[in-house]
Amino acid sequence: MAKLTQLIDNEVFRAYATYATIVLLKMMLMSLVTVYFRITRKAFVNPEDTASFGKGESAKKYLRTDPDVERVRRGHLNDLENIVPFLGIGLLYALSGPELYTALLHFRIFAGARIAHSFAYLIPLPQPGRGLSWAAGYAVTISMAYKVLKTVLYL
Amino acid sequence: MAKLTQLIDNEVFRAYATYATIVLLKMMLMSLVTVYFRITRKAFVNPEDTASFGKGESAKKYLRTDPDVERVRRGHLNDLENIVPFLGIGLLYALSGPELYTALLHFRIFAGARIAHSFAYLIPLPQPGRGLSWAAGYAVTISMAYKVLKTVLYL
Amino acid sequence: MAKLTQLIDNEVFRAYATYATIVLLKMMLMSLVTVYFRITRKAFVNPEDTASFGKGESAKKYLRTDPDVERVRRGHLNDLENIVPFLGIGLLYALSGPELYTALLHFRIFAGARIAHSFAYLIPLPQPGRGLSWAAGYAVTISMAYKVLKTVLYL
Repeated sequence: MAKLTQLIDNEVFRAYATYATIVLLKMMLMSLVTVYFRITRKAFVNPEDTASFGKGESAKKYLRTDPDVERVRRGHLNDLENIVPFLGIGLLYALSGPELYTALLHFRIFAGARIAHSFAYLIPLPQPGRGLSWAAGYAVTISMAYKVLKTVLYL
Repeated sequence: MAKLTQLIDNEVFRAYATYATIVLLKMMLMSLVTVYFRITRKAFVNPEDTASFGKGESAKKYLRTDPDVERVRRGHLNDLENIVPFLGIGLLYALSGPELYTALLHFRIFAGARIAHSFAYLIPLPQPGRGLSWAAGYAVTISMAYKVLKTVLYL
Repeated sequence: MAKLTQLIDNEVFRAYATYATIVLLKMMLMSLVTVYFRITRKAFVNPEDTASFGKGESAKKYLRTDPDVERVRRGHLNDLENIVPFLGIGLLYALSGPELYTALLHFRIFAGARIAHSFAYLIPLPQPGRGLSWAAGYAVTISMAYKVLKTVLYL
């Protein structure tokens, strides 16, 4: 067990673990927001989900798309597309021996950018609010990928 | 190599590796189910996929959506949305030094819940079958995230 | 820090880090291709994204789907569905002590297959080009999962 404890004692790794968990929890929150909008907007996609509204035509009218539900779903998918690279590249980056200060800067910008992205998407804020928050998270991930490849490259 | 062998010798880490691989294989199975339904229902989305059915109008009619195909695809996306957090948070949880018994409980409930979710989605079972299996996996992931943050928090 | 440096000094782990980063960067490229097609095809999904084209009806006509945009988005989702299992299973595989030669073979085939898959999807190439590249990446991931389960199985 000594080994594992030592890994988790490393400050850069602890910072990665903290921010990775935060952005994953934020992404998971999108599921709850989707459920909230599906219920309040009465917009479902699976017939079995509308069974409690009655049978036949009375329930069928709730099988529809709603702009708010679709908006949350797009935000959720965008999270997946951007947080998956952060998880993988960020882990390798944390193991590549960066300076603590630099690593924290990367992790904080990424987490802040993704939280800002969700607000920009859900409120919604006028562009380029969402675009810039997306680009900030993207750029930080590229920067970490560069450090990883520079350190470990083995083709 | 000693290091790596020791990591993989840790029982909690081995349990994580086992259950993470199982849920990923289960998720990968959704791809095969999608292919199966696309072929049996003759419902494709890319024109190049219907080329073997002939040219022009005779092939074009197979470019359509099918309820069964869409159902599998929703189940697949739901897997991605829930298994990605499990992979990341579960790895950090396994490294945060939990009791073996507690860790196994978390991993087993998650894997069982996701397998139940797939059956509930594909059969489909009446609600709240799918909802409860989703919630069980979600709750277990939140519980692991709480343990990770309590152990490593470094903002 | 000694620990982490030693992990990253392991040749198999370095190979995993290199190829995982490459396929994640490739997946991230799909976001840029989507943005490129959305702008050149003038096909957007969020009303706030078309605000710069003017107000009311003149902007509304750009809220539409475009076959090229949808094609890239399908390729991107397929990447997620396949690269997420590679990231998780590949990491555990790298820690399970495979031969360097065998590990490199797995990683190289996967990365090559996913790059080929993107070209096959975006050009698009006639089938079974895309199907075979998808299947190659899938098979390699299954092969690594088998090795992981054989080494660590702990239910």
